[in-house]
Formats: sequence, C-alpha cells, structure tokens
Amino acid sequence: MKVAFVGAGNVAWHLAQAFENVHISITEVYSRNEMHAENLCKKLHHAIVKKELYFSDPELDILILAVSDDALPTIVKQIQVPSNTIVVHTSGSVSMDIFQDMTYHYGVFYPLQTFSKEKPLNINKVPFCIEGKNDFIKNKLRNLASSISESVYDVDSTQRKTLHVGAVFACNFVNHLLAISKNILADKSLDFNILKPLIEETIKKALTTDHPKNAQTGPAIRKDTQTIQRHLSYLQDTPQEQTIYQLLTDSIMHFYANKSE
Amino acid sequence: MKVAFVGAGNVAWHLAQAFENVHISITEVYSRNEMHAENLCKKLHHAIVKKELYFSDPELDILILAVSDDALPTIVKQIQVPSNTIVVHTSGSVSMDIFQDMTYHYGVFYPLQTFSKEKPLNINKVPFCIEGKNDFIKNKLRNLASSISESVYDVDSTQRKTLHVGAVFACNFVNHLLAISKNILADKSLDFNILKPLIEETIKKALTTDHPKNAQTGPAIRKDTQTIQRHLSYLQDTPQEQTIYQLLTDSIMHFYANKSE
Repeated sequence: MKVAFVGAGNVAWHLAQAFENVHISITEVYSRNEMHAENLCKKLHHAIVKKELYFSDPELDILILAVSDDALPTIVKQIQVPSNTIVVHTSGSVSMDIFQDMTYHYGVFYPLQTFSKEKPLNINKVPFCIEGKNDFIKNKLRNLASSISESVYDVDSTQRKTLHVGAVFACNFVNHLLAISKNILADKSLDFNILKPLIEETIKKALTTDHPKNAQTGPAIRKDTQTIQRHLSYLQDTPQEQTIYQLLTDSIMHFYANKSE
Repeated sequence: MKVAFVGAGNVAWHLAQAFENVHISITEVYSRNEMHAENLCKKLHHAIVKKELYFSDPELDILILAVSDDALPTIVKQIQVPSNTIVVHTSGSVSMDIFQDMTYHYGVFYPLQTFSKEKPLNINKVPFCIEGKNDFIKNKLRNLASSISESVYDVDSTQRKTLHVGAVFACNFVNHLLAISKNILADKSLDFNILKPLIEETIKKALTTDHPKNAQTGPAIRKDTQTIQRHLSYLQDTPQEQTIYQLLTDSIMHFYANKSE
C-alpha cells in the first residue's frame, strides 16, 4: 500500500511514522511550509518532499489531507490525483462532501486524539473514525486504521458532528473549568497540586462507572442551598465565574430531577 | 497515641484502618447506626463500639468527627470529651469555629479525596488539610496526617472554603460536563468509550502543564465562530446544554482575551 500526505503538522507526523512502523510506505509529503515536509521526510524511509499539489503516481492508494479545517477548502480545490487514489481528510468537523466535486474516491480518516510532535503517544489506543463514499472505500480505510490502532469506528458525517460537540463539553470545557479552578486557588496562594488527586479520582470514577451521572457529588446534587449561596457570594467579585457556578448548579439540579432513570 | 471516631462512614472507614496500619490505636467508634460502628470495629484490633457521645478516657489524644456536614452541629452540641482531647472534624466546608463553645482543643483534619468503603485507595497520596486552634494542636495534627500521607498542607478555614469552591469547578462541574457529553453521544447511539482516550489525554495535559490554560483547545479559543454557530444550532432542542455551551464559549473567549499573561 502506498500513502502520501498533504500537511506535515502534528497529525501527519504521528500517522506517517505509525504507518511506516507497520511497513506501509509513505511516498510523498507536501506542506505549505517546505521545511516541515523536509523534517517529516527525514523521519521516514523513502518519502520525498512534494513541491506542488499535483499527484501523478497511479499506484498511490491513499492521499491523506492532514491540514487545518480552515486550509481544507483551498487545498481541495488545488489538488489533482489519479482517478483511483482515495482522498481523505483527518478533520473532526468537516463533512466528507467537501470532496464531491474533486474526485470519485473519498472518505474521512479522523483520529480522535490531540497530537503534539514532541510527545510520543500510543497510537494503538487512538480511536479512528472512518467514513467512506462507498463500502469499498470504507473497507480500505478500516483496514488502514486497523493496521495501527485497535480502536476503529464507522462514524458518518452527522455522527462526527455529534462527537465533536460531545468532545467540546468533555474536553475543551472541562479544561476551561480546570483553568478557572486553578485561578480560584491561585488568588488565595493555594497550590493547585492539592486538588490533583481528587481530580484524577473524579475522572477515573466518571470513566469507569456506567454513566458519569452515577458519580456526581457536590452541593448541587445534595441540594445544599446554604453551601451554594456561600459559594455564590464568595464569587461575587468574578461575575463570569459566578454565572458559570449558578448555571452549572441549576443544570445539575435539573439533570437529576428529570433524568434520574 | 490514642484516637477515637464519631462516624463510621467512608472517611472513618479508610482513616481508622490507615492509622492502625501505622500502629496508631483506635480505641472507640461511635455511629448513629450501631451496625456501621460494629462493622468498622471488626476491621480494627481493639476498638469497641461506643454507644453514647460521652468520652471519658483521659488518655484519648484525638477524637475525629467523620460525619456529614449536616450532622456536625447536632453532634458537636452533644459530645463531651476530657479537657486535653483534641477534637477535629473532617469536613471541607465547615469552619473550625464550630467547636469554640465546646472545648479548648480543636482543629480540622480534612482529607481532600472521595472515599468509598468498597474501593481501596492509596492513602499515602491523599492530601490532608490541617488546621488547629494553636501551634501545638496544628503540630499534633500535622504529625498524625504525616504518619499516613506524604501530602499534608496547612489550610485555614478561609483557604478551605477556596479549595471547596475550586473543587466544585474542577470535580463536580467537570463530572457534570462528562455526563452531558455522554448523553449527547447516547442520543445518536454513539459509544462514550470513543471519547475516553481524548478525555484522559486532556486531563493529563491539563495537570502536567504549568497552567491548564496552556492546554486549551477547541473552537472557542480559535474564535472559530462558524463551528460555534453550528454547534449552537445542533443543541437547539436541549436549551440547557445550549446555554452552557454559549456561556462556557464566551468565558473561554473572555479568559484568553484578558488573561493571556
């Protein structure tokens, strides 16, 4: 199998090397920033730096566009590939239909994880979300993903949107709450490390129980209005945090009042 | 050193056994539910079930009230102890002053972790927050905590309140966002397991970087208004979740506009 990449950022960096580890050849790497493509090619066996978006090797099986969501529409317009090459992007939020005017063979190859070049990660545990224009393509992409990961899911564009919304709540917003918590402690010269074991245990419980709702604790679920009032008045000088406290407290009360099934 | 407990719930269960592991004797255990006290005493070497709140052993060094916040005021009114016994509670949100009309020797012995009887945990990693009416008491409590944990902090009642507010954001609210995320996926028959590696990585990054704000990702920090609008309209049938999405998105934008120091 022959694979080429457009993009040499964090995602391409990890995927390309993972493929070569299972003897899938990376033939070419294109990047708007040629230096990035060179750096990645140095990590690979035979890959060469591609200088334009015209791919002519008829044996190229899969072209992976591992570029930012913003860059995708422009790149898609510029690319030319042999008619049998499958073109995929790696984005969580762009529909597969972005390819419909470009080629007949396309799909999505979305690794649901954050990548950093400098940080090694166990690609075998990364969930890959696969979508293909037809079953032949889907199979091919599923095989490609299975060669590097034990966790491969068929996810269509609608479900991918759902996943993305879910990830915003479970990851982006969670991280923001941790940032707010750190600031609340720092304002009183308290070391955030003191909360870490509790945070780790909270996550562990939430992810091992049937549903995180079974692990909910705190003043809101206890309907401990005295504590809630004390906390709200504690937060009176930071109205944004106060509003978040009020809304999430209301949401917890509402959640367990109506969804205690 | 002799220690006794009022309360035989999750906290007493773990603390009492941890103390005996380092050869600190538990002499007596009282519980409103006598069966609970009996069950705990069975796990201990010489402890006996106490049937009333009158403690008369003049050698009792420390009496630990490991009861719920609600029960504390009533219990405190009923208890009698020898004048040298230090009385502490284990609550994150009740002031030390609750003891001021009861005895001269008091403090707080607050383990910042969630406990379940059936779940073993490494007590050595649990942060203990210590407060004492004077330095003698503080030292005594610090030594007691250090005998079972490597992580002991001096935390006064004001700081304890701060910690509690911080923990509501970092644990209770975080768990709730995970519950919401699970429901969003479940509504479209998507397995929540698909998000777990990303959640774990998010937490790992947030807790190992200098400040979780350095690990923020997602549409809000990218000011990706198109994606944000798509997500908001996706959530239009669940107005509570839509409001949370809007508020936390605004908060992230605001946070990084003003606090990019």
